[in-house]
Amino acid sequence: MDQFIERDQLIKEWIYEAAKTIKTSFNAELEIQQKSNRNDLVTNMDKAIEKLFIEKIQQFFPGERILGEEGFGDNVQNLDGVVWIIDPIDGTLNFIKQQSDFAIMIAIYENGKGQMGYIYDVMQDKLYSAQKGNGAYCNQTLIPVVDDKPLKEGLVAISSALMSKEEGLARIVGRASSGVRLIGSAGIETAHVVSGRLIGYLAASLAPWDIAAGKVIAEEVGLIYTKLNGDSIDLLKKNASLVAAPLAHEEIISLLSAENKA
Amino acid sequence: MDQFIERDQLIKEWIYEAAKTIKTSFNAELEIQQKSNRNDLVTNMDKAIEKLFIEKIQQFFPGERILGEEGFGDNVQNLDGVVWIIDPIDGTLNFIKQQSDFAIMIAIYENGKGQMGYIYDVMQDKLYSAQKGNGAYCNQTLIPVVDDKPLKEGLVAISSALMSKEEGLARIVGRASSGVRLIGSAGIETAHVVSGRLIGYLAASLAPWDIAAGKVIAEEVGLIYTKLNGDSIDLLKKNASLVAAPLAHEEIISLLSAENKA
Repeated sequence: MDQFIERDQLIKEWIYEAAKTIKTSFNAELEIQQKSNRNDLVTNMDKAIEKLFIEKIQQFFPGERILGEEGFGDNVQNLDGVVWIIDPIDGTLNFIKQQSDFAIMIAIYENGKGQMGYIYDVMQDKLYSAQKGNGAYCNQTLIPVVDDKPLKEGLVAISSALMSKEEGLARIVGRASSGVRLIGSAGIETAHVVSGRLIGYLAASLAPWDIAAGKVIAEEVGLIYTKLNGDSIDLLKKNASLVAAPLAHEEIISLLSAENKA
Repeated sequence: MDQFIERDQLIKEWIYEAAKTIKTSFNAELEIQQKSNRNDLVTNMDKAIEKLFIEKIQQFFPGERILGEEGFGDNVQNLDGVVWIIDPIDGTLNFIKQQSDFAIMIAIYENGKGQMGYIYDVMQDKLYSAQKGNGAYCNQTLIPVVDDKPLKEGLVAISSALMSKEEGLARIVGRASSGVRLIGSAGIETAHVVSGRLIGYLAASLAPWDIAAGKVIAEEVGLIYTKLNGDSIDLLKKNASLVAAPLAHEEIISLLSAENKA
């Protein structure tokens, strides 16, 4: 893959264009549909933004495959070659109920390796981005490598699904950390780990588009991004996942493995 | 009590002055001390801001009593006459770890009745305020009376302490609502219920200064603020508490009472 600078510029333009469309939609009535359950929702906006991105990618980078949350992309069964992984609105429930704390996410992987990652916190106007090997940025500012503190000195985000599935988990991680937070958007939560506001983020079942961009960015600031059991992320499946600073990552994995044995 | 307009103007001035001091402190080293436990912290900033407010109140309203989180005010044993209830930094852990999602809170009660309430979300520059009977504002904008939706259509914030104490609670309320969020500041969480981003907020043990300002503001937009069992708030003690839109309030109380009987 080449044309990093051109790709970077284009992706940023598309993201800002999408954000403008999303913000305008606040004044209109959203069309809301249920997906897998009452709280797994999709709006006309999620669909419109995904289609916008796909159109742009196909126009500028024909032949590159696209894996998107709303399914308008390709039927991607492997990660050979260049694959775009996109989430038009991450945190759709927050988008609908709060009009805040949702993100636009775009990533490019090549032969399974993350090359570029973008998380845009629309309402805070913060664009987190990274190109592999070149560090991570929040807007134009380089984000420092994370402070590798012990778990007890940091706040940890835990996904809603994980919180409700494993009733003991919030208490176990809560006791071992400074406290638990729950924002409800993998993109925003990962961005807050990247920026050092949180020391880690655990989730029960993240899809490839929830992970792809954040993983590229997270690794550029020294974070470890794996499954919740420590295995490598599989970007063709859903993953129980953990992204955290190295020390905290190790502590959480060993806490959970001790709990599973108990 | 009189001089509402003068009080309102002064309180806003003091809050903006305090916020400026707090933001400047981000560049300096904080002095952090433990209070009741490892995650109950106080900084030199909490203390300095409380002292600033007390000085101002004593200068402009001599003889009025002050109940403050850090204990520099009066030893308030009843709510007779005019009592100021202040929390210089609500969400100290967020202030230290995230430099975001913390609030300045000031309230004035007269003979136990809330007269004025202020919650300032410092980093979002959003000042929620209300005078009894005159509606609630976010900055200069009147906040509409809340939409009285059923619990299943709204997001609910649950305090860290409640989440870890009652392991079933997150699941019970989570299942019945659209989902659970956890921000870690009673002030911010109450403000989000006021603005309609959340439908309710439950906490295990809020002090008078965590509740006082939010209760005045919440009641101006039609929210119900009680103990978690439905009883009236006691502003001289800690309270397990619930603020929510009327329908959701009723649903949560009956869910929890059914759970307690089970």
